[in-house]
Amino acid sequence: MYDGIVQDLIDEFGRLPGIGPKSAQRIAFHILQTQSFDVSRLALLLTEVRSRAKFCEVCGNITESERCSICSDARRDQTIICVVEESKDVVAIERTRQFRGLYHVLGGAISPIDGIGPDDLSIPALLRRIGESEIREVILATDPNLEGEATAAYLSRLLTTIEVPVSRLASGLPVGGDLEFADEVTLGRAFEGRRKVE
Amino acid sequence: MYDGIVQDLIDEFGRLPGIGPKSAQRIAFHILQTQSFDVSRLALLLTEVRSRAKFCEVCGNITESERCSICSDARRDQTIICVVEESKDVVAIERTRQFRGLYHVLGGAISPIDGIGPDDLSIPALLRRIGESEIREVILATDPNLEGEATAAYLSRLLTTIEVPVSRLASGLPVGGDLEFADEVTLGRAFEGRRKVE
Repeated sequence: MYDGIVQDLIDEFGRLPGIGPKSAQRIAFHILQTQSFDVSRLALLLTEVRSRAKFCEVCGNITESERCSICSDARRDQTIICVVEESKDVVAIERTRQFRGLYHVLGGAISPIDGIGPDDLSIPALLRRIGESEIREVILATDPNLEGEATAAYLSRLLTTIEVPVSRLASGLPVGGDLEFADEVTLGRAFEGRRKVE
Repeated sequence: MYDGIVQDLIDEFGRLPGIGPKSAQRIAFHILQTQSFDVSRLALLLTEVRSRAKFCEVCGNITESERCSICSDARRDQTIICVVEESKDVVAIERTRQFRGLYHVLGGAISPIDGIGPDDLSIPALLRRIGESEIREVILATDPNLEGEATAAYLSRLLTTIEVPVSRLASGLPVGGDLEFADEVTLGRAFEGRRKVE
């Protein structure tokens, strides 16, 4: 235990996700001893981030304006919506540079254990978007886990009733991976989704 | 990439030691979305920690007062000084509850590669303490690595010339460890330092 404020800072860092007591201690010492580290900048960002960061009024992505940079970009294909759970999924997909349509951020996935049902996700906003403009495909890009699959299944049932074409990201072996180390569910999916070689 | 301030916060967290881009992103989202997390408290601690945290005028340990809680504790044995590299070593040794003497924090270890020589460490203050009071033992508890050993060797030469008894923490097999996984240097040290079983 350290005296007073140093221990307080260690405790506070220890509350953040993925930071154990040892890392918290190392970070606190770094801040204390590294003169080049701009403490006031981090402090300022912390106090401002919650008030300045908003959710895009169209897609729910994190942004600083009313609309996020993707929704306000006229060059994006306005007829395809990719549905994801969180803003960080948008970032991951953008990194592939494969998708040029719009997003819809649900704000989570259906998870009865955590008490999250369809009503807790921004599904009405998605339906409104589909109703208001010409959408030729909705890509379901929720996580390939229990909650993500449940959410995709729920949405695909809902969307096919209103007759909008729905697709789901492929599951299969990760590129660069080793077949023998793939779990049986992934390997099963890779078989199911196999493609004919032309 | 996120818009504006969220990315700034991620970047700033990514500058801290041991936090990669993925962890920085997770932390930023946690701060953004977890209402129960007290952002202003962390911001306040960050701005205050450097001005309020001091180094103990006697031993160099981190403290909020002029003297640290150990140096101001009259029940501690004032005749033994344990020399360590950093404040976190004090915390580690205190946790053992084996040592009831005083500490001296050098502020690092001799490391020619990093350009740290004996003059960069608080060695004069240590000599002054030894000269001013009756010290019956100086325990060298620098790290058992290259820099720590070099520092211990330097200090032991220096201190034996002024005729103060010097000891060094034992090196050997870690308790609970497995002999077959010990590196050869540690195993060699364990042989060198073997004790007769009475």
